[in-house]
Amino acid sequence: MSLIGKKGVVVRHIDRAPQSVIHQMAKYGVATVHEAQGRKGLLAPRIRPIQQNVCIAGSAVTLWVAPGDNWMFHVAVEQCQPGDILVVSPSSPCYDGFFGDLLATSMKARGVIGLVGDIGIRDSQVLREMGFYVWSRAIFSQGTVKETLGSVNVPIVCADQLVYPGDVVVADDDGVVIVPREQAIEIEQKSQQRMQLEESKRQRMAAGELGLDIYEMRPRLAEKGLRYVDRLEDLEG
Amino acid sequence: MSLIGKKGVVVRHIDRAPQSVIHQMAKYGVATVHEAQGRKGLLAPRIRPIQQNVCIAGSAVTLWVAPGDNWMFHVAVEQCQPGDILVVSPSSPCYDGFFGDLLATSMKARGVIGLVGDIGIRDSQVLREMGFYVWSRAIFSQGTVKETLGSVNVPIVCADQLVYPGDVVVADDDGVVIVPREQAIEIEQKSQQRMQLEESKRQRMAAGELGLDIYEMRPRLAEKGLRYVDRLEDLEG
Amino acid sequence: MSLIGKKGVVVRHIDRAPQSVIHQMAKYGVATVHEAQGRKGLLAPRIRPIQQNVCIAGSAVTLWVAPGDNWMFHVAVEQCQPGDILVVSPSSPCYDGFFGDLLATSMKARGVIGLVGDIGIRDSQVLREMGFYVWSRAIFSQGTVKETLGSVNVPIVCADQLVYPGDVVVADDDGVVIVPREQAIEIEQKSQQRMQLEESKRQRMAAGELGLDIYEMRPRLAEKGLRYVDRLEDLEG
Amino acid sequence: MSLIGKKGVVVRHIDRAPQSVIHQMAKYGVATVHEAQGRKGLLAPRIRPIQQNVCIAGSAVTLWVAPGDNWMFHVAVEQCQPGDILVVSPSSPCYDGFFGDLLATSMKARGVIGLVGDIGIRDSQVLREMGFYVWSRAIFSQGTVKETLGSVNVPIVCADQLVYPGDVVVADDDGVVIVPREQAIEIEQKSQQRMQLEESKRQRMAAGELGLDIYEMRPRLAEKGLRYVDRLEDLEG
Amino acid sequence: MSLIGKKGVVVRHIDRAPQSVIHQMAKYGVATVHEAQGRKGLLAPRIRPIQQNVCIAGSAVTLWVAPGDNWMFHVAVEQCQPGDILVVSPSSPCYDGFFGDLLATSMKARGVIGLVGDIGIRDSQVLREMGFYVWSRAIFSQGTVKETLGSVNVPIVCADQLVYPGDVVVADDDGVVIVPREQAIEIEQKSQQRMQLEESKRQRMAAGELGLDIYEMRPRLAEKGLRYVDRLEDLEG
Amino acid sequence: MSLIGKKGVVVRHIDRAPQSVIHQMAKYGVATVHEAQGRKGLLAPRIRPIQQNVCIAGSAVTLWVAPGDNWMFHVAVEQCQPGDILVVSPSSPCYDGFFGDLLATSMKARGVIGLVGDIGIRDSQVLREMGFYVWSRAIFSQGTVKETLGSVNVPIVCADQLVYPGDVVVADDDGVVIVPREQAIEIEQKSQQRMQLEESKRQRMAAGELGLDIYEMRPRLAEKGLRYVDRLEDLEG
Repeated sequence: MSLIGKKGVVVRHIDRAPQSVIHQMAKYGVATVHEAQGRKGLLAPRIRPIQQNVCIAGSAVTLWVAPGDNWMFHVAVEQCQPGDILVVSPSSPCYDGFFGDLLATSMKARGVIGLVGDIGIRDSQVLREMGFYVWSRAIFSQGTVKETLGSVNVPIVCADQLVYPGDVVVADDDGVVIVPREQAIEIEQKSQQRMQLEESKRQRMAAGELGLDIYEMRPRLAEKGLRYVDRLEDLEG
Repeated sequence: MSLIGKKGVVVRHIDRAPQSVIHQMAKYGVATVHEAQGRKGLLAPRIRPIQQNVCIAGSAVTLWVAPGDNWMFHVAVEQCQPGDILVVSPSSPCYDGFFGDLLATSMKARGVIGLVGDIGIRDSQVLREMGFYVWSRAIFSQGTVKETLGSVNVPIVCADQLVYPGDVVVADDDGVVIVPREQAIEIEQKSQQRMQLEESKRQRMAAGELGLDIYEMRPRLAEKGLRYVDRLEDLEG
Repeated sequence: MSLIGKKGVVVRHIDRAPQSVIHQMAKYGVATVHEAQGRKGLLAPRIRPIQQNVCIAGSAVTLWVAPGDNWMFHVAVEQCQPGDILVVSPSSPCYDGFFGDLLATSMKARGVIGLVGDIGIRDSQVLREMGFYVWSRAIFSQGTVKETLGSVNVPIVCADQLVYPGDVVVADDDGVVIVPREQAIEIEQKSQQRMQLEESKRQRMAAGELGLDIYEMRPRLAEKGLRYVDRLEDLEG
Repeated sequence: MSLIGKKGVVVRHIDRAPQSVIHQMAKYGVATVHEAQGRKGLLAPRIRPIQQNVCIAGSAVTLWVAPGDNWMFHVAVEQCQPGDILVVSPSSPCYDGFFGDLLATSMKARGVIGLVGDIGIRDSQVLREMGFYVWSRAIFSQGTVKETLGSVNVPIVCADQLVYPGDVVVADDDGVVIVPREQAIEIEQKSQQRMQLEESKRQRMAAGELGLDIYEMRPRLAEKGLRYVDRLEDLEG
Repeated sequence: MSLIGKKGVVVRHIDRAPQSVIHQMAKYGVATVHEAQGRKGLLAPRIRPIQQNVCIAGSAVTLWVAPGDNWMFHVAVEQCQPGDILVVSPSSPCYDGFFGDLLATSMKARGVIGLVGDIGIRDSQVLREMGFYVWSRAIFSQGTVKETLGSVNVPIVCADQLVYPGDVVVADDDGVVIVPREQAIEIEQKSQQRMQLEESKRQRMAAGELGLDIYEMRPRLAEKGLRYVDRLEDLEG
Repeated sequence: MSLIGKKGVVVRHIDRAPQSVIHQMAKYGVATVHEAQGRKGLLAPRIRPIQQNVCIAGSAVTLWVAPGDNWMFHVAVEQCQPGDILVVSPSSPCYDGFFGDLLATSMKARGVIGLVGDIGIRDSQVLREMGFYVWSRAIFSQGTVKETLGSVNVPIVCADQLVYPGDVVVADDDGVVIVPREQAIEIEQKSQQRMQLEESKRQRMAAGELGLDIYEMRPRLAEKGLRYVDRLEDLEG
């Protein structure tokens, strides 16, 4: 844990979850994966996509940067592999435009599929057009400098979540969820089960059945004291 | 008024405005209806649509929930009729993901056309794809529990507005406005008049006439002391 | 400087940058122009577009208004010329819906191409449909009154930036940047140079070259003490 | 309900709760009264006191104002009686400095004990020195105009709560709670009972007894599945 | 105007307003000075004092810094004279702890009386104890680096206001107002007149006279249509 | 790491740093300790004290709670020892009033010295009077329920920081910093050294020496290109 915030370090080799597992995760989406791992791992809702109708999953390459300084992004690119997602957190809150189309071009050339960051980004239209996917805190063109070291592939806290390099990142229109690498296989299976379970519920609900009956909620609601009245006026007397 | 915040109650029967009136409201949109009723009834601007280019109107089924608890949504579904819009407020501020595609499926099966809530929602992409319309405070997948009672169809304060069950809800890309049920017929007529008035103004403005002249603003501006100068430098001397 | 906040004044004649220069700026976009003028001039990131995939540039007609009062917009329309962009700031923070489709119709009839304002706007769907481009702080239908004078074409502070009438406004999906009129020709040239420079970098990066090598960053990173390790475990000992 | 947002009206006579009841409420404080009435009635936490160590209770005189316009405060003063608290809400969000030491002097002369408002106030140091108590959204000197009518003593929504004229307002260092006038006697009694109950609990806790035992929580916690382990490492295996 | 955001520059000599004028301003306070200069010049309300019951006035030494970089504070100290107030703005939003007790010691040794900044500060308890007065955006200990140049004594936009070096800064419990140096003498006189005028009003109000009568508001209110009714019920019929 | 967000677990035994080391930390304060450990460990600045002029240090007992549910506080009390500080984070953002004077009484009886939480608290005046120290996100009386399990003494992310049970918490008027238990001895020593170093600097600065000279900054500033001019006008030519 004491490696969080370790400065000036680049870790070259990280373990990643099996690619087949990661591929599956992208089909389930953020809400399902989040539920499957016990309602944990969500990034704060300030992290929003700049595109719509996209769901991806990949391995986290973590990046810790100084506020207003994007020097370390260039260092991070070299550590990326195809299928990776760069996860970025500044050492103090900052939403300058750390990342734009040039860096995206470089990352895309290495097979990186997207960026998740508690930062600002810029060139948003170009990023959408080139199909480089981004979830960020802000869209803001503010330029940055290249003066201060950060770190690559050390654990970081990003938008309320601890992220280790190699963790699985799932991101869609709802936001972003982190799955610890060691649990990826287990969570993938639980996610699949949850999807199947939900599918059967969905069909019954689409046919008009109520959740009250499907989940047998009525007795417990009554026990808690839920009271039905005919009209609002009945409550006032 | 003392029914606000009444807990553990479901009101089965509510009065609704005439469907024909509601249908018309959806054509006028939020800004016009808001003006027609004397600039009242707008929900706070934090309530934003998750889709674009949609304007709907319907009858409010109101739902009051505990923070982080979506149990009562299932109770609310049963009280909904075709053409209704569920209006949700938590008993204390919370933007967890109370609502997703399963509940939307159930509501759609009953003819509910949308949800307006000072809450978070999830499965936003699926909701858009299935055409279930949503205005919410946040998009956030955070799961909720089913432990605590709330109420259905009692008056609530939602995002700065008092909402009674059966009030008319109008929602479009601009946000949401509430029209008290008893005033729906009157406000529909005023909205229509306003639209017609605006249409004539729009044509004159499109032809190049100025509002200064159409509304005869020049004398009153002069009276208030508006001063025209040729250049900025004229002010500095 | 003391003209900031001067109330009840309309300046009829303002100087504008050459139209050819302005046209070019719209091709470079906000991030490039911002960098070319030394990382200055960005409006705060709360100012967001209501449309996507649009980049415009124009001459600023400045408008200073009282909170919740849109009277002066009608005065401002008359001072606009084809190619202008109205830049609006309230005298105290306010995000009411000062501006909607009627005023947009009037402005479009005069050739105004868009509005940038630290205010709320309404009729957002119609504005998008009619192709009148808007960057604002909020989308909120709240109606306004016509009681209090403001000023047209005096300098204003808008969302963290000083704006003089006639300054060049560049606005795209990233936000808005202001270029002082006297520097427009110089900044246009620098922007063009920057774009060309970036284009060559982009091609090298697309081909897989790293920024670390293109910009020769490795020696300076080493000098600052950047340390590479093989694995996270190597840091813990 | 449709009287909310009624503009240009002053109601001269309102009913108030018994003064003895109100006096008692000031002894219980906000948290206790809020609990006693079923966890309802709290103003949003953005409403903060400008002084410390003060708890007051009084009858609400309600004031609805246009944004940036404090004209109606002068109208409201005349409607106040000794023991009243002015409760203010703007018709759209605004934190200008509507209220300062002059108005406070006038109100104090009539026996008004404080102001609660979803607005900005100014002269905060003088207000503290003269012992006029204020809970507001902001401290901001921004001056206001006197152009637009609002209303006095119509129901308002203030910081998430519906307030009727004559309701009891309780305000302390924690914030503000509203008690409907008709329920004041009942809530005062419940508050007193709650205080006595809490006092006995407080003494047991001060003596070292645990809430776990006082409230007999252990069985239900076990039933819900709470698990005790000796050390963190025991969870990892 | 184009000097705003000029980087890497220190201006050694600035003009200041007469010390006698500045001394007087500190007696009037922020609200009065703000009104006297036509309701202009207030810093955004996010700028709050870290102490209470303090009102100061001084000459602005302006400081423009890179985010998370406090190097230039040391450069600024040398440019300060007794009676100055340092006014700081970061080139992009940042609330790191740029300033603490060491820098305050250095500034106090030169006679600087306080700091106003759209930044974070730290050592807040010590600053209060040593009587160095501060108005800031945040209290946050986050350390900063010393890598990037900013500028001293160029014009800056700070929390919504343009500030020139040498402008008069007035700061009290309400916040901060800026008076352009060239207008200081005039505004001091207007402030004094306003204070005297307010004093006579205050005495009449303290004696129970109403603003409605003192300012003769009744006729204009009636003309605008203000309607008095006896009871709320009279409005509902 | 996968223990973060583990639900329904109480860890009975945790290791704590030596009490002598903790005592020393309380003398250095947040800013110094934060610097001494490499500018890491600060809680987000939204966590503010409810009292002034207090600096404490203690061992973290961690508490993870469901939103709007304070049941687990009673469980946590039993796990506390004299000198502990309770550190609380909700599983999704929530600022209800989880904690008040009753729980504080119970904690004080066990020797707990304070609470740090990304939550709301209530009874703030009583807490101050009884000398139980609190740093929280909000002061809000909103009552909570007792329905859902959380965990005690598992690692949590609280306001941007990872906190392990037994970590050292230092909290003062500036905010809160977390020191990992294993590094407490080392950081205590570095903090002491830093304090001594600062003391010598403070004396030189108090005597009028400039940081520019003490830290020999002038050459590096010149090398970076810092330019001194006599007057603002010199920059405009």
